[in-house]
Amino acid sequence: MEKAILLISSSYVSGSGYLDAFEETIKNFLKNIPQILFVPYAADKTNWDSYTEKVRQHFNLFGIDVRGIHEPGVENEIDDFKAIFIGGGNTFRLLYQLQQFDLLSKINDAVLNKGMLYMGSSAGSNVACKTICTTNDMPIIYPPKGFDGINLIPLQINPHYIDPDKNSTQMGETRDDRIMEFHEANNTPVIGLREGSFLSIDDEYYRSQKMFLGGTNGAKFFFPGKDPVDIPNAREIVFISDGIFYVE
Amino acid sequence: MEKAILLISSSYVSGSGYLDAFEETIKNFLKNIPQILFVPYAADKTNWDSYTEKVRQHFNLFGIDVRGIHEPGVENEIDDFKAIFIGGGNTFRLLYQLQQFDLLSKINDAVLNKGMLYMGSSAGSNVACKTICTTNDMPIIYPPKGFDGINLIPLQINPHYIDPDKNSTQMGETRDDRIMEFHEANNTPVIGLREGSFLSIDDEYYRSQKMFLGGTNGAKFFFPGKDPVDIPNAREIVFISDGIFYVE
Repeated sequence: MEKAILLISSSYVSGSGYLDAFEETIKNFLKNIPQILFVPYAADKTNWDSYTEKVRQHFNLFGIDVRGIHEPGVENEIDDFKAIFIGGGNTFRLLYQLQQFDLLSKINDAVLNKGMLYMGSSAGSNVACKTICTTNDMPIIYPPKGFDGINLIPLQINPHYIDPDKNSTQMGETRDDRIMEFHEANNTPVIGLREGSFLSIDDEYYRSQKMFLGGTNGAKFFFPGKDPVDIPNAREIVFISDGIFYVE
Repeated sequence: MEKAILLISSSYVSGSGYLDAFEETIKNFLKNIPQILFVPYAADKTNWDSYTEKVRQHFNLFGIDVRGIHEPGVENEIDDFKAIFIGGGNTFRLLYQLQQFDLLSKINDAVLNKGMLYMGSSAGSNVACKTICTTNDMPIIYPPKGFDGINLIPLQINPHYIDPDKNSTQMGETRDDRIMEFHEANNTPVIGLREGSFLSIDDEYYRSQKMFLGGTNGAKFFFPGKDPVDIPNAREIVFISDGIFYVE
């Protein structure tokens, strides 16, 4: 089975509407698939319906139908779907719900072994990683089964990555400081994915660690004990666990 | 026994050195106490000694001795000390260590029932609250016993509080957005404590909910389902769970 994973830093990019910056990318990714399964669990329960409706209206523009994973007739049964999209919101709330409904391993299996396409944005990209330990979100709820994510890739994404502002008088940690703290406790490489950027991962990645960094603003790659590597433009990259090799 | 709690937003304030902005406040708070117990657990284990040494050098300037809670002869036995200071760093790491050494309830008891003075800064202020659920920190390690803090006050502090920047093009959540997310899942009021500010809490708070907001930049108070209240200047406040009353 082919694997296909699209991980977007953020649904909104400054100056454009919901997912608009990724319209062509998403169309190419979904190809002819007429229906996707949407997971609104990063939102508060009271907003699952409205969030799903917003996503439905967006995808309907391209002739793609959307089912909410919480909706009657679906109710967390994912096997019938060819593509899943996990939207942004609060990553702790998202993980909590995925744990409650025992979905982490089911989604992992569907994507890595059964050819289900995976699309994530923001919290939905973070939760696709080994753990959620590189989220920016506030820990508003305790996930009782740990911080492990869906673990589609043995890497960490930091979504909405933002470079340190040298003119700031704020003394709290910069994003780079926080990722360095992560590396005091963990060895997994971190991809600081700037808003406007995405990672596209397919079978080639699992064979040769080659993935595509797409979109407009690039990413910064952090390895424990090394200086970060800034890749400002879209390009193919080979991401070895302790270094990056470009493929022009 | 008198209770006395000093909760500082951040050890560093732009333009001044470690704890310098709070020198008079801390001297008045500690009065004649010749020795404090310092908790460096928000730092990585490899830095506990150097962190404690930095704090020791600072307090020695005022003739105050510092013992590290991890040091030989102390080793997490807190009963002999009249004052405890929990420093800043990563709140998840701090909570993890406090859980490992079973210190949460011991510190709670020492401060609320035995007259031990409590001083916290940043992560050390956050962990003094009901939970750590209003931290800004990255969840670099999983605290296996939940997010409950020392619970000295039935409130939440968000340290390093920063107002939304209206000129920012970043689409990720503002601090206010994050606190609103917290209130989708929790009812506890949140005090967004700006850098340069502190809360001073003593017996009067437990009788009449009166506390002192001190320092230079004030705080913003958030209640679920209400507009936040900005208190820009130092003043006495009476903080009722669903509202604030000033005491000029």
